[in-house]
Amino acid sequence: MIVIGERINGMFRSIGDAIAAKDKKPIQEMAERQLAAGADVLDINVGTRVAKADRPEVMRWMVEATREVTGKPLSIDSPSIDVVRAGLEVASVKGPVIINSTTGAQDRLDAFMPLAKEFGTGIIGLTIDENGIANTVDAKLEIGMRIVSAAMENDVPMEEVYLDPIILPVKTDQNSPRVTLETISQFKMLSDPPPHVVVGLSNVSQQATERSLINRAFLVMAIAAGMDASIHDPLDEVLMNEMITAELLMNMSIYSDSYLKAYLQHG
Amino acid sequence: MIVIGERINGMFRSIGDAIAAKDKKPIQEMAERQLAAGADVLDINVGTRVAKADRPEVMRWMVEATREVTGKPLSIDSPSIDVVRAGLEVASVKGPVIINSTTGAQDRLDAFMPLAKEFGTGIIGLTIDENGIANTVDAKLEIGMRIVSAAMENDVPMEEVYLDPIILPVKTDQNSPRVTLETISQFKMLSDPPPHVVVGLSNVSQQATERSLINRAFLVMAIAAGMDASIHDPLDEVLMNEMITAELLMNMSIYSDSYLKAYLQHG
Repeated sequence: MIVIGERINGMFRSIGDAIAAKDKKPIQEMAERQLAAGADVLDINVGTRVAKADRPEVMRWMVEATREVTGKPLSIDSPSIDVVRAGLEVASVKGPVIINSTTGAQDRLDAFMPLAKEFGTGIIGLTIDENGIANTVDAKLEIGMRIVSAAMENDVPMEEVYLDPIILPVKTDQNSPRVTLETISQFKMLSDPPPHVVVGLSNVSQQATERSLINRAFLVMAIAAGMDASIHDPLDEVLMNEMITAELLMNMSIYSDSYLKAYLQHG
Repeated sequence: MIVIGERINGMFRSIGDAIAAKDKKPIQEMAERQLAAGADVLDINVGTRVAKADRPEVMRWMVEATREVTGKPLSIDSPSIDVVRAGLEVASVKGPVIINSTTGAQDRLDAFMPLAKEFGTGIIGLTIDENGIANTVDAKLEIGMRIVSAAMENDVPMEEVYLDPIILPVKTDQNSPRVTLETISQFKMLSDPPPHVVVGLSNVSQQATERSLINRAFLVMAIAAGMDASIHDPLDEVLMNEMITAELLMNMSIYSDSYLKAYLQHG
């Protein structure tokens, strides 16, 4: 599994405060803690407290702060192409990068795919188009196909494409988990080699009381369906242990009595 | 989910001791604890400490002890037709019963299916035949089909048939979970209405260090694949909570913030 750590995000109070205070220490510490806990990629998100006009500059500063402590892949998380470009310019000189994210809307694909090509990055594509979030398997597949085609046209290799079927909160849309699981398994058959499939996991439990339980049950199901990347909190140790166990059960790692420890040691 | 509580089994020390001492109290207490924790069916297994010749008599005694405290379904667990018959004779007069189990071997089907018809019971059919445990999806399906056909020939209704694909320990057969999950989803397409699908859950974690973690990750995956019954320990609260959450995610129960409590209240 490719674990994209979600904790460097201005929406979390400690990170939001660090941004306001121009204090890079909390950001760097959060980078190191997530990597130690098993994150493969660190998501960087400015959050919403920063004024729009300042976001490219703040993204640049957050990426630079993170790059001082790691050359591991960073996921530059913004719907704004200016913010993404600002992040890419500083992140990509010192390590791999993923753009988070484009949608399947034509104007977004036309803007973001060339950027992925220019900087040689990965790119997450959400199953959203001109009509909003697709909510059936067929509609999600159609958008997924459009994203895959746009990647091919722009010479972005399939190993760099991450399709996100978008899991909605089970509290408000109880059909979403089932639709998402079916979409995951279908996405894996869209091309050969297949694209990666990723979700923003915590969305499934938005507004629910049993967030941790819901997150981990859905993660286990999604791994069984073929999902190979997830944006979540790697500091949630129970979640990580279930993820590692799910991979073991799907024969993606080799059994040893100490398989939990072995996972973190292999990095 | 139909939860078949596994704890009234002579292999557990407290039950084995109760059998040896002819003390029905621990058996009755274990029955009540499992039912309170969410068990729908109670499995009754004499265990291996009792001499073979005495097992029919001990099964009868265990069933009578349990029937004094509940009219809920009992699962009479033995490979021996004499032991099963002894259990059925006393269990079936006071409530529903499931035979646990037949295999797909012809001589077993010829013996057990008429028994299920005679006593009007459910019956669990293991994917084992004259060649041993089937270890591919195709071989499991073929045996499953044979069990379904035998049920039809003997007028055992499909709602009373439980196919068990047999999950092997992940420690010794890492391909088994994947094969089992695929078999579960195929079993659900064998007939209309489909048979139930059940596993003896704890087998997946035999000899492993992280038993609880492995049990619950596999249970969640199996529910997503369509499994609707499980033989496990209902006193494992974390396991039960994940099971209830998995059903919620598969839209088999209605979301409320207190869905965990609601599950146990509905019984």
